Amino acid sequence: MLQFCTFCKIVSGELSSNTVYQDEKAFAFIDIRPVNLGHTLLVSKDHYENIFDVPDAILAHLGKTLKTISTAIKAATGAEGINIEMNNERAAGQIINHIHFHIVPRFSGDGLQHWPGKLYSEGELKEIAEKIRKSL
Amino acid sequence: MLQFCTFCKIVSGELSSNTVYQDEKAFAFIDIRPVNLGHTLLVSKDHYENIFDVPDAILAHLGKTLKTISTAIKAATGAEGINIEMNNERAAGQIINHIHFHIVPRFSGDGLQHWPGKLYSEGELKEIAEKIRKSL
Repeated sequence: MLQFCTFCKIVSGELSSNTVYQDEKAFAFIDIRPVNLGHTLLVSKDHYENIFDVPDAILAHLGKTLKTISTAIKAATGAEGINIEMNNERAAGQIINHIHFHIVPRFSGDGLQHWPGKLYSEGELKEIAEKIRKSL
Repeated sequence: MLQFCTFCKIVSGELSSNTVYQDEKAFAFIDIRPVNLGHTLLVSKDHYENIFDVPDAILAHLGKTLKTISTAIKAATGAEGINIEMNNERAAGQIINHIHFHIVPRFSGDGLQHWPGKLYSEGELKEIAEKIRKSL
């Protein structure tokens, strides 16, 4: 547990939360400032900052746990869809530096809009694909 | 392969794409309408609709593959952060009914805003947590 990490304190019980799920590696609780009611956060029990430092085995476990919790949230809230979102680093909107997934119930007509798409100029798309392949 | 599925056709090569990664279960290519340049889609090679019907083993594999690709996109684009997003069902913004994750490079000051948080009324939070626990 990291002494100053809010999510470590929630996992340990030092801070209270409305827990919905836990197992040996994962912990999920209700986000107190929900995008829609039932919005839940899934975190690792151990402290990792984000996707860049989390071990593969933990990430794989969180991946399949997303399904368990998404299915339960859909049943419990009557949601017609589920968004999963993960913010890694401050520029991406990460506020608590402990890896977490947002699981957000969605309803037709709830008014939430996705970010608009841009266009690539000629050649730019192939160039960026090549750069990413070379960085793998 | 599902005959009418765009992403199945991309995975099989019937439709061309700017592929950045593939292995036995996963396939990733550049989104042609990127939120930011370098925005990549990670899909399963086999056809599943979304998080609700994908097998656990595939979801776990996609989970850890997100890390590989996010790390490469960050290096290739100079991004300061990465958002991961997954839309499940139409009400959540899913357009192609083949499971996929959006991997979006982010930059300070790129102007993209997250959805605002709502507030729970008294008792509502505990009630919804209880409903989700009972649905697990």
